[in-house]
Amino acid sequence: MRFFSDNAAAAHPKVIEAIAEANRLDTAYDGDAWSRRLDGAFSDLFGTEVRALWVTTGTAANCLALAALCPPYGAILCHRDAHIENDEAGAPGFYTGGAKLILLDGEGAKIAPGTVAAACDRIRKDVHQVQPSAISITNATEYGLAYRAAEVAALGEFARQRGLGFHMDGARLANALATTGEDLADVTWRAGVDALSFGFVKNGGLSAEALILFKTELADEIAVRRKRAGHLLSKGRFLAAQILAMLDGDLWRDNARAANAVAQTLAQAAPERLVYPVEANEIFLKVSADEAAGLRSQGFDFYDWAAGEIRLVTSWDQQGEALDRLASAIAAL
Amino acid sequence: MRFFSDNAAAAHPKVIEAIAEANRLDTAYDGDAWSRRLDGAFSDLFGTEVRALWVTTGTAANCLALAALCPPYGAILCHRDAHIENDEAGAPGFYTGGAKLILLDGEGAKIAPGTVAAACDRIRKDVHQVQPSAISITNATEYGLAYRAAEVAALGEFARQRGLGFHMDGARLANALATTGEDLADVTWRAGVDALSFGFVKNGGLSAEALILFKTELADEIAVRRKRAGHLLSKGRFLAAQILAMLDGDLWRDNARAANAVAQTLAQAAPERLVYPVEANEIFLKVSADEAAGLRSQGFDFYDWAAGEIRLVTSWDQQGEALDRLASAIAAL
Amino acid sequence: MRFFSDNAAAAHPKVIEAIAEANRLDTAYDGDAWSRRLDGAFSDLFGTEVRALWVTTGTAANCLALAALCPPYGAILCHRDAHIENDEAGAPGFYTGGAKLILLDGEGAKIAPGTVAAACDRIRKDVHQVQPSAISITNATEYGLAYRAAEVAALGEFARQRGLGFHMDGARLANALATTGEDLADVTWRAGVDALSFGFVKNGGLSAEALILFKTELADEIAVRRKRAGHLLSKGRFLAAQILAMLDGDLWRDNARAANAVAQTLAQAAPERLVYPVEANEIFLKVSADEAAGLRSQGFDFYDWAAGEIRLVTSWDQQGEALDRLASAIAAL
Amino acid sequence: MRFFSDNAAAAHPKVIEAIAEANRLDTAYDGDAWSRRLDGAFSDLFGTEVRALWVTTGTAANCLALAALCPPYGAILCHRDAHIENDEAGAPGFYTGGAKLILLDGEGAKIAPGTVAAACDRIRKDVHQVQPSAISITNATEYGLAYRAAEVAALGEFARQRGLGFHMDGARLANALATTGEDLADVTWRAGVDALSFGFVKNGGLSAEALILFKTELADEIAVRRKRAGHLLSKGRFLAAQILAMLDGDLWRDNARAANAVAQTLAQAAPERLVYPVEANEIFLKVSADEAAGLRSQGFDFYDWAAGEIRLVTSWDQQGEALDRLASAIAAL
Repeated sequence: MRFFSDNAAAAHPKVIEAIAEANRLDTAYDGDAWSRRLDGAFSDLFGTEVRALWVTTGTAANCLALAALCPPYGAILCHRDAHIENDEAGAPGFYTGGAKLILLDGEGAKIAPGTVAAACDRIRKDVHQVQPSAISITNATEYGLAYRAAEVAALGEFARQRGLGFHMDGARLANALATTGEDLADVTWRAGVDALSFGFVKNGGLSAEALILFKTELADEIAVRRKRAGHLLSKGRFLAAQILAMLDGDLWRDNARAANAVAQTLAQAAPERLVYPVEANEIFLKVSADEAAGLRSQGFDFYDWAAGEIRLVTSWDQQGEALDRLASAIAAL
Repeated sequence: MRFFSDNAAAAHPKVIEAIAEANRLDTAYDGDAWSRRLDGAFSDLFGTEVRALWVTTGTAANCLALAALCPPYGAILCHRDAHIENDEAGAPGFYTGGAKLILLDGEGAKIAPGTVAAACDRIRKDVHQVQPSAISITNATEYGLAYRAAEVAALGEFARQRGLGFHMDGARLANALATTGEDLADVTWRAGVDALSFGFVKNGGLSAEALILFKTELADEIAVRRKRAGHLLSKGRFLAAQILAMLDGDLWRDNARAANAVAQTLAQAAPERLVYPVEANEIFLKVSADEAAGLRSQGFDFYDWAAGEIRLVTSWDQQGEALDRLASAIAAL
Repeated sequence: MRFFSDNAAAAHPKVIEAIAEANRLDTAYDGDAWSRRLDGAFSDLFGTEVRALWVTTGTAANCLALAALCPPYGAILCHRDAHIENDEAGAPGFYTGGAKLILLDGEGAKIAPGTVAAACDRIRKDVHQVQPSAISITNATEYGLAYRAAEVAALGEFARQRGLGFHMDGARLANALATTGEDLADVTWRAGVDALSFGFVKNGGLSAEALILFKTELADEIAVRRKRAGHLLSKGRFLAAQILAMLDGDLWRDNARAANAVAQTLAQAAPERLVYPVEANEIFLKVSADEAAGLRSQGFDFYDWAAGEIRLVTSWDQQGEALDRLASAIAAL
Repeated sequence: MRFFSDNAAAAHPKVIEAIAEANRLDTAYDGDAWSRRLDGAFSDLFGTEVRALWVTTGTAANCLALAALCPPYGAILCHRDAHIENDEAGAPGFYTGGAKLILLDGEGAKIAPGTVAAACDRIRKDVHQVQPSAISITNATEYGLAYRAAEVAALGEFARQRGLGFHMDGARLANALATTGEDLADVTWRAGVDALSFGFVKNGGLSAEALILFKTELADEIAVRRKRAGHLLSKGRFLAAQILAMLDGDLWRDNARAANAVAQTLAQAAPERLVYPVEANEIFLKVSADEAAGLRSQGFDFYDWAAGEIRLVTSWDQQGEALDRLASAIAAL
């Protein structure tokens, strides 16, 4: 059983069905009936007027947003373990035209106004140093922690005061919300977020993510940048249909809850081994190399993380006997 | 009935089936079983060793190839009506980091060694002028003409002599080959093509194109550039599976033949109105504004092109009564 | 005697003196006493508030301005013989991050509202085509013609109506004004110009050009871009001092008049051979290859231009016997 | 008396003379007699064949070199206090097209093979993480320490083993060599350096730095990039002449020795206050805010650095009574 990544999981059957149903002639690109429903569907979901664009990857969503929020000569403040820094092959540099990432510390890959302010204040206000233009956070973080609405709002308030854009990489936002039970609006636009990469692929989707713009005036520029980056698929209805299927009946919430439940089952098997509280679908465990080898010999796959740590990522469709066996195996370590 | 674009057409049922069948857990990105079959499948198809990468759009395929073939300070020679110049929102400039397109003339959007040479020879060999690095052609062209293998080979030979890279945008290569009956290898790598954007989406695919590298040493760099551009989908097996379905049993050839047959039916309805010979699935007709309005009033949709011209694009799934009605309506103009 | 280029000419002695006088300790970069005088000096000269930044080349001035006026996904409309297209190694693509130059026709390298409008109107207003963001003209043009204030104003009005930025490459603006006798303000900001590359190096300067921003809100961004491009010299006072020397006592006007007078002497030697009216310091003559060889054999150097044409460029310091000999030699062809 | 920066110092009289002497008509750009002497002059100086290009700033020299050594999708390893990271407004991102700087720790702004290796080894060898392409060091460092030839060679050997380019920012290389007494060749090309930004402006020059390419095959590409960046001055002879004047009679060594001597005078006034050994022309002193105010009240200017530290930078022309007064004032603190 594989616990490498929720990226590897299957798509939900309703997503596959939605693709099949969308297989009718319609207008190309994003002029079709499905794509045209996105703005409304997400405006309803968030309780405020938003613009929503489909893209195929979180990297594209993140970097299109960042390119609109940060000029080539600006900087983006983020955690040093952020996906945009470590796992996107330098895509922020490509999309922004060379902007800089300023890397911040913070437990569990969370950043806080204090660390952001300290970094900003170290920068001389002259033309020799790159000035900050935006903040980007990941929620849930790269270590599976969920930002609370109040934490996001504190960053949002700081961003507002300093005139910085504010982006949230929500590849696992659904998982974070399933844990905190907080309101989607509270943790995003009401907290000052300008642009949200709303992840679906890790959560039972197939190939469609949504870029949500609370700062709606960014949408037209980003639509141009999306095309220019080769991300305007000609049969966009197949992406929009996936997203609509995920929204329908709150499937995105159900899937996240299912993945989180799997994570909790594993976490409770050995709570003393947890590196971080489990607030999403990622579990980081203190496990020696020998113990890791033992788990692998029983047929379980996962990543080695830092020395003496392993990472397991759960997904919406992992249940049943194999899961119980893994929980037992962990408990028995 | 809509004749705007083959982009708007449905995907072939076998493509949808392949997606459903690929909906199993596997490795993320392009490490899965489907993606790993692509190099072999295309090497077999072309009769030479190639590297093949999936992407979701022709723009991405074109521009990833061009970025590898042309440095930021170089130039790409292409027809002034080329898709990369007119319909990709400046993506070549984005991907290459600011390289220049040098626009050439040529009947039916074809270019020939003479025009390419003349353009090259106008450029002083100094640091003040941008030096050419690559040639890009579209086959079938933007006006639906098919390059013959000998024409491509003449350009390829010129490219070789001058040390230029050679890229083919084959968004409708299948349609061109269905007309000429020439060999796939003859019109590509044997003719000196380094990189081919092999189109499937317009030809019954859903969201997967293939970038074929005959110059296989480009592949590793392009794989990095693909990730950096946000084009490495996390569930890549759904793209690879589409492509494999299109190759299976030569479905790609069947679909192209079907779309071309529709085009021929329309072309033969009014051969005297044709602006160009119909060698793929695009028909350009001399039709006055009044006549165009008449066709539209009968329920047919298409683009106005130059003054007094309309463009119809056919697809693999257009047959039956509506097609006959359109043919009759054109004949009756 | 060399008539290749005013770039090759000597610097005026007063410019050399100014450099020697500036050789005192002061603040680095552009915080020194000389640099801080530029805004005021040019505001006085133009009769309106401007911001003025020194740079070392016309290419830097042009492209810094264009980068501020045109986003990476935009286009700049210019003549197809413009310096930014032909003689700057693709610098506009580098500075803007990949924006496109749309090339226009026009006699003597001049463009007019009609051609600009036609080019704009050919562009579909969608995300697939690159939308125009700015117009750039060269005055005097690459063929030595001077735009009249009314011509510039017509373009400026068009730019205003369409929301386009408006840049003037004034590498030889001094020469144009020396011919037309028009007012500096009338041909620039009163005509709607946002940014002017005001050339001094071809006109007796040594290494300093001025970028004048009538749209003063661009200045801060451009100051950052200048640093980022490595164009913020650490001892900037040596550049500012050159420019102030050129402004002092209207030396820039005197030098331009001198160079123009040389051009007129040559032009009048064979008025029937002129390809264009001589309105600056460039003369294009219809001269056969044999005739050109004859002139060269008498010790005169110049560029061959189009077939059967030569180009001579005059400078502020060319007078005396050699000039008379060349005039006679041309008359005697 | 100002100790802000050697950037603010005067140019050496011989440099001014050289400019005046170069004020004759010659070929434009870098085709003139002075520019054509650079390759030979530096090849003689280094005892190996090099290519040498003039530029006007260290930022341009650094970033042109880095752009040739690192692709847009690569990374450059440097100290976190490096000039390229902190004081060039993100120019490396602009010139390379978005490459990443990986920031390393190290006492006194020096890096060592161990830290470089650790950083490289943390990077997974996949397309998701940016792979290192080059190392850049500053010599003397930002804290005025001189790399010994053996230290450089150890980094050079590491670079060679890993296939990384190796760049040295030698803005104060002259000062470092004046201290170590080591051989210019030993600390550069014999130690594996590919490209050197050889600084003259801080050392008595006016506006000319030299970019020295030991890896000579980079020169043609860099010449194109220099033009494209607007750094090919049209009257290049005025830059080349400055550099030749600095090389003539080893003026560059004399100036560096003079500046270093000033620094030693100050350092010896309060050796117990030194934050770092003084190995070039920068002195970092532990001085309280009150003490700093006291020095300023006596007419001395300098930068506050970290809390409780000040930085003084000396230059070739600082001698005499004011210097003695400052030394006494420091001693008396």
